[in-house]
Amino acid sequence: MRNFKIGIEYDGTEFLGWQVQKTGRTVQGEIQKAIKNIFKNDITLFAAGRTDTGVHAIGQVANFKVETNLPSEKILRALNANLPKDITIHAIEEVPLDFHSQFDAKEKVYQYKILNLPNRRSIGRYYFWRVREKLDLKKMKIAAKVFIGTHDFRAFGTKISQEKNCIRTISNVSIKKDGDYIVILIRGDGFIYNMVRKIVGTLVEVSRGKLTKSGVKNILLGKDRRLSGRTAPACGLTLLEVIY
Amino acid sequence: MRNFKIGIEYDGTEFLGWQVQKTGRTVQGEIQKAIKNIFKNDITLFAAGRTDTGVHAIGQVANFKVETNLPSEKILRALNANLPKDITIHAIEEVPLDFHSQFDAKEKVYQYKILNLPNRRSIGRYYFWRVREKLDLKKMKIAAKVFIGTHDFRAFGTKISQEKNCIRTISNVSIKKDGDYIVILIRGDGFIYNMVRKIVGTLVEVSRGKLTKSGVKNILLGKDRRLSGRTAPACGLTLLEVIY
Repeated sequence: MRNFKIGIEYDGTEFLGWQVQKTGRTVQGEIQKAIKNIFKNDITLFAAGRTDTGVHAIGQVANFKVETNLPSEKILRALNANLPKDITIHAIEEVPLDFHSQFDAKEKVYQYKILNLPNRRSIGRYYFWRVREKLDLKKMKIAAKVFIGTHDFRAFGTKISQEKNCIRTISNVSIKKDGDYIVILIRGDGFIYNMVRKIVGTLVEVSRGKLTKSGVKNILLGKDRRLSGRTAPACGLTLLEVIY
Repeated sequence: MRNFKIGIEYDGTEFLGWQVQKTGRTVQGEIQKAIKNIFKNDITLFAAGRTDTGVHAIGQVANFKVETNLPSEKILRALNANLPKDITIHAIEEVPLDFHSQFDAKEKVYQYKILNLPNRRSIGRYYFWRVREKLDLKKMKIAAKVFIGTHDFRAFGTKISQEKNCIRTISNVSIKKDGDYIVILIRGDGFIYNMVRKIVGTLVEVSRGKLTKSGVKNILLGKDRRLSGRTAPACGLTLLEVIY
């Protein structure tokens, strides 16, 4: 048996997210189908992070185990040949049998892209969230500092059960202007459901003057998700990198 | 009667091009529908250039005449509110009644985007042509000079009738690297059918060593389109600007 780690890019627009569902097109489902075509076996693929409907990935990582003599490079080419164009395998590596893409991941970096223009834009509209009012990056950067460190992020998730452990460590939040875009990078050891999108929605509320840094801090401490900002749309979000 | 000139951006992916067809979704058709919704009148919209299936526009220009008291800004907002998300009107201006977006256009600038990577890419795949082999920009730039000036471009069009006047003037061809992309800008007073895509296809053949500068010149002089390069795919092409 051999264990393969693969690097995956996908355009999330036409997927019901990563994880196989009873019905609907998913990234995991499509790649497992490609694996089955090649190896004639039902094999489960484990991802570093399960992304949601409409969320993209440039640096998703997954692993699967298979009995084969094929060299890695051939498997990579065969996978791409068997995959639809909205999924690309860009790297493959044979790893020890005990490697697990999710449990061994140390950190993940998510990117959130905002198009900050009064007018909408048609080209590339599946890859950003358009925010009409000019964003105040200075205010957003100050408030973003609240998230750095180890906290109970319950207030910045959705659909979280009472029992769930929501303690996560965020090591960095960077907010940069890139032409008409604002690019937010959030790096952490884990993320609860919708956490990046809730953080981004909250930072936009801060820019709008509806929340201050201390307001954000109080929401984090109070653990009440009804007080945090809206969940920013999925299309702006990309899983950029997984760090091992 | 008033005459309005509008600036239009569109994502050509899901359109059968600009021009209204008997069946199928077109940019002209969608905008005329929006105009009808607002003014309750069947009004014909004239574009500077009719783009093909899958071709995008950032700076398409069109004009239409209507009896109305609405201020321009209100018309722009009403148009966008009535248009699907893959079309955006980004500018409006009232112009003299004799202005015609096609006949008054002096020059157009088309952009062709090549992703030059051995691996394919999923994100944004409707906005570039991926060419696997590393392109030789120096060779391409040298050969591109052949197109500058006034020539009979018959050999660089498709579906051109014998009688058609194919004399056009190209004032500039620029070829630049932008990260993993090669961006080609072609500026001219007019373009016959598929001309930009045939020129780009030919320049890629030059990079591959299948054609030289003098070979390209001979094709241009010989007017035989069977000798020019392949027609590069529509998705890489964008109408960038119309100059009046």
